[in-house]
Parts: sequence; C-alpha cells; structure tokens
Amino acid sequence: MENQKTRILVAVKLTQSSGEGYPYASESSKAVFEWILQNIVRTNVTRFDLQFLNVHSPDSPYAKDYQADKMMEYFGCRCQMISVGSSSEIRLGHDPKIEICNEVKRVNPDLLVMGTTPKLGYFQRVFRRNVSGSISINEYCLKHAECPVVIVKTRADDQN
Amino acid sequence: MENQKTRILVAVKLTQSSGEGYPYASESSKAVFEWILQNIVRTNVTRFDLQFLNVHSPDSPYAKDYQADKMMEYFGCRCQMISVGSSSEIRLGHDPKIEICNEVKRVNPDLLVMGTTPKLGYFQRVFRRNVSGSISINEYCLKHAECPVVIVKTRADDQN
Repeated sequence: MENQKTRILVAVKLTQSSGEGYPYASESSKAVFEWILQNIVRTNVTRFDLQFLNVHSPDSPYAKDYQADKMMEYFGCRCQMISVGSSSEIRLGHDPKIEICNEVKRVNPDLLVMGTTPKLGYFQRVFRRNVSGSISINEYCLKHAECPVVIVKTRADDQN
Repeated sequence: MENQKTRILVAVKLTQSSGEGYPYASESSKAVFEWILQNIVRTNVTRFDLQFLNVHSPDSPYAKDYQADKMMEYFGCRCQMISVGSSSEIRLGHDPKIEICNEVKRVNPDLLVMGTTPKLGYFQRVFRRNVSGSISINEYCLKHAECPVVIVKTRADDQN
C-alpha cells in the first residue's frame, strides 16, 4: 500500500471565453489543479498520480481538439516541473457526466476532483441533445461515480 | 504556504449498534479515517492536521457523552501513534448538518470529509423535530459547507 500511488482523476474543461488563448484551460480547472497541489499533494510528490480528463462535444463551437491537446500539455508540463506523475485522456462526447463516470469505472481512481458546473437551464436542455434532465455534472458524478468525489468551489466559477 | 498544514475536518459519528462497545466509532467513521490516512495523508504526516467533529443529539438513546469522548480518544491515539496532528470537538445538537456547516464556518478547514448518511424517511422526519425536509446530511453539507467536501462511500455504510 505504501508504495502504491494515490491516483486522482482530475476533470478539466476548456475555457468558454473566446480569445483567451493558450493554455485554453478554464480558470476553474486551473484553480482546481492548484487546490490539489496545495492541499493534497503538497510536498509528497512521489506518492500521487494525477490523471487529467477532458470531455468535450465534437459539435462544440469553442472546444477544439488542438485546444484540448494544448490544455493537457499545460497540465502535463506543470506536473513534470514539480515531479508529480501525470497522464491525460481526451474524450469526445455529448454528455460529459456520463463520460466522466465511465472513465471512473475504467481507471478506478482513489479520488475524482472537479470544479463546479452549473445546472442546465430550460433552454440548454431543449437545445442540447442527449442531455438527460437538468441535473448538473457535479450532482450526477457525486451520485454515480464509483469513487469519492471532491467538488472544489473556486472564485473562478463565476468566470467559467 | 509550504509550512502551513492542510486542515481536514472529519465528521465522525457513534455506532448505532448497541453492545458494540469501545471505541464507539461507527464502522463508516473508522473507514473514512483509514481512507484519509491511506489516500491523502500517506507518509506526509507533518503536513496535515485532522480535526474530528462529532455532533450528537442530547436526547439520543444510544449516543452518550462518555461514548463520544472515548471515540475521540480512539482517533486521537491513532493520530498520535503515526505523528499526525489532531484535535477534536464534540457538539450537542438536534441537527448534525447545521452544526457541521457552522463548524466549517468557524474553523475554515481546507477539506471536510464524511461518510455517507441516509436520507431521512417519512417516519424519521415526523418523529425527529428540528430536521428540515428529507435532505440527507451529505447533500446539505455538499451544498452549504463553505469548503470542498468529500463523501467517502464505504462498505461499512451498510452496517451503520
């Protein structure tokens, strides 16, 4: 047990603000990452492994594959600089909450960490296909992900 | 920042099984404690401070003050044995979820960790005064606690 690493699945998303540019990670995702480093990993870098997961829709007007790649590069570099093990996974899908829970099932992490996500309103539900009900990604993952889940509320949530 | 400890508030409860005896902690509370040690604190014992909180009703037929004291002694000793800083707080109150969120406001921890708690059924709501609605302690704390919250689901939840 002592030699096994704690594996943290970190759900990250792209910024929705056009023109924000590199590294394309949303402010809340960057804040979640910093929170993990400061509060969980701390100086114990050899005992943790961060597995970044991004799910974005193939139809999204703002989320493109190269942006997701660049975002993962950013997190990978940051981890490398402080010698924390990391890996990344990009998935295309219309419903991030389902994809995130499937990924939890697949990799069986010790902890899933994510920022807050808004509950979908009426118009979003009408115009976004394959999104079941108005439950937020957070609520769904808290209920269905088969591992402990931390939702990190940050000031950045107001921005995106 | 490097010298500050990560302060984890751990909500623990007494066992509801009569005759289980010392140390009186519920199986799920002990499992939550072990989860924190194995997955978060690991070998980095000097960087964490565990603050145990127990809230029990003054009218409870099974939760007595001396049992809460003994439970806190148990967790305190376990922490001392591995040199993790700890403290404890016992509060009497009819509504644990309110007390837990008040304690979060008071001590401002980096993380609140708790086991799963069942949603109250109709009869419990009728017979327990001062319990608002049927929302579980977990759901309430996830929504209202002013810090990140981890709910650790354990096999022990089936027992108590």
